[in-house]
Amino acid sequence: MKVSYFDRAALEQRLKMADVLDVVEGVYKSKAEGKTIVWPTVTHNFEDRGAVMDIRSGYDRGNEVYGAKLLATFPENEKRGLPPFSGILVAMDGTTGLPKGIMDASFITSMRTGAAAAVSARALARPESDTLLVLGTGRQSLFMIGAALTAMKNIKTVYCAEPMNLDAAKPYAAACPQRMQEMFSLDASDVQFIPVSDLAESVGKADIIITITRATKPIISRDWVKPGTHLSCIGADMPGKEEVDPAILRDAVIYVDDVDQCVNAGECELAVKGGYMTREHISGQIGEVLLGAKKGRTSAGEITVFDATGLALLDLAVAKKVVEENGGDSAHTINL
Amino acid sequence: MKVSYFDRAALEQRLKMADVLDVVEGVYKSKAEGKTIVWPTVTHNFEDRGAVMDIRSGYDRGNEVYGAKLLATFPENEKRGLPPFSGILVAMDGTTGLPKGIMDASFITSMRTGAAAAVSARALARPESDTLLVLGTGRQSLFMIGAALTAMKNIKTVYCAEPMNLDAAKPYAAACPQRMQEMFSLDASDVQFIPVSDLAESVGKADIIITITRATKPIISRDWVKPGTHLSCIGADMPGKEEVDPAILRDAVIYVDDVDQCVNAGECELAVKGGYMTREHISGQIGEVLLGAKKGRTSAGEITVFDATGLALLDLAVAKKVVEENGGDSAHTINL
Repeated sequence: MKVSYFDRAALEQRLKMADVLDVVEGVYKSKAEGKTIVWPTVTHNFEDRGAVMDIRSGYDRGNEVYGAKLLATFPENEKRGLPPFSGILVAMDGTTGLPKGIMDASFITSMRTGAAAAVSARALARPESDTLLVLGTGRQSLFMIGAALTAMKNIKTVYCAEPMNLDAAKPYAAACPQRMQEMFSLDASDVQFIPVSDLAESVGKADIIITITRATKPIISRDWVKPGTHLSCIGADMPGKEEVDPAILRDAVIYVDDVDQCVNAGECELAVKGGYMTREHISGQIGEVLLGAKKGRTSAGEITVFDATGLALLDLAVAKKVVEENGGDSAHTINL
Repeated sequence: MKVSYFDRAALEQRLKMADVLDVVEGVYKSKAEGKTIVWPTVTHNFEDRGAVMDIRSGYDRGNEVYGAKLLATFPENEKRGLPPFSGILVAMDGTTGLPKGIMDASFITSMRTGAAAAVSARALARPESDTLLVLGTGRQSLFMIGAALTAMKNIKTVYCAEPMNLDAAKPYAAACPQRMQEMFSLDASDVQFIPVSDLAESVGKADIIITITRATKPIISRDWVKPGTHLSCIGADMPGKEEVDPAILRDAVIYVDDVDQCVNAGECELAVKGGYMTREHISGQIGEVLLGAKKGRTSAGEITVFDATGLALLDLAVAKKVVEENGGDSAHTINL
């Protein structure tokens, strides 16, 4: 069997953010139409080495692709000169069960995670939103900004905040225009990137907030958030992680990528456990808004929240697109 | 990252049954020592196309390998000239989380399934056993015979039975010596391969019975089985499958590859549901016998049964061995 394979460098060349936005929107719609299955995630803590891994899998009938993503975080690898994060994505053809593609999972995960936050922000934020705050300056944060700027051309101001070390935001913000050009072929010369020194103040100025930290305690307080703000809460993706005051969720209209996953492991998890909200407070899946089946934001003054913990369905659909647009590339084909 | 990959042909060249027997025995022992984790299996029925797939995963701390096996059965592929069975195995290094190898799963599955039945028969059958009955003449049955003949040099008579079509056993038995030579480099010239025309009679002559059919109703009756027989029941690997009279299990000393899996989906499943036995009637895992922690057979007159539904742990450990013995083979290395 011929199977396509792509390493990270090959994917960086081939995958465009605009396409990933389309794929993510399509999968969310398919999911809301009941055309997808998310299988239970397997997770494991390698406690003796401070490492974690998970295996996420699912089936997207809309795209006729199923498969699995294996992601690993082994911090001690750095000491050995090995990558601390790694992953493999295996995409199978839903019509034949044969493998379609095997590829590095890290770049696709970064791209689709950025796209998920941006697609939801575009759907739930006030249409005139032009100010974005991104909380977190890790590597993933650049994908959040790149996706948001690709999806929402209105955005002209990006606040960059590093809650653990406010000073780190300065060189980060200064480098953003060049990184946007290099990573996403984005001309961001008319966008202002502002390093945040006062988080409360910048939260108050933001129309859209995207959180992408590893926090386990709230960083954004309820009283900083102005009416009409949209928050895409992405960092909290396993039990015990939390980025924003649960009172924000209590007061917000909430949409999610997957209700079960978000209640078990997303930003909603600790808000539910803390009694700030119930599962029933979640208005629905983001795909229902994208389909027009649910209204999403119903007034300019509402706070809206999108909570996501990640779906292998997104990765698989992106993988399918990569294979279909690069099929027959013999330098990226093996026999399996 | 450099990752090794092997298609079926490459594995057929590299993998020897004697090594697979050793690996399977080692994994069963590791499992009995609590050094392995079997993660929940994901299964899916593609009802509109009569297809099934499963994703099995696990972690073998003894071998420091974890990962997943994706297997698919799409019968309609045959009409399209595509393989109806296919699978991919992804093995990760437990010390780094980095991929070690990606390979065709079908050949390794066949080899380790044969080895599982043979390792258990060697441990549980009477030592003087020299007569084997293999029920089933599908492609997998040759692996059952090859593993048994490799593991137990005593065996001099092999009864070959095709319960759905007794005549099919004649050409099958006649071809066996040559197939053993081709597939396993086994000189079986001193072994008699006898096609079965009367199943009851050959069951009564067999010291060891290995079942590898897709039956959903018992084929072997309790009263055909003589005292002291060992049965390795391998075909029943999902709910609803059953190959032998549940009264055999009621009267037998039973060991399994995994208690939960066998009660849920193995030969034990319908025997438990039918009230012929309880979960507590299972004496233990086969690895406990291999370690000497449990006695296995306690008298020459006992009927012993090994029930297995398959463990991805076996595949992963075999995959690890293949990679370690063939590392640095640039024709089988990709960047991922």
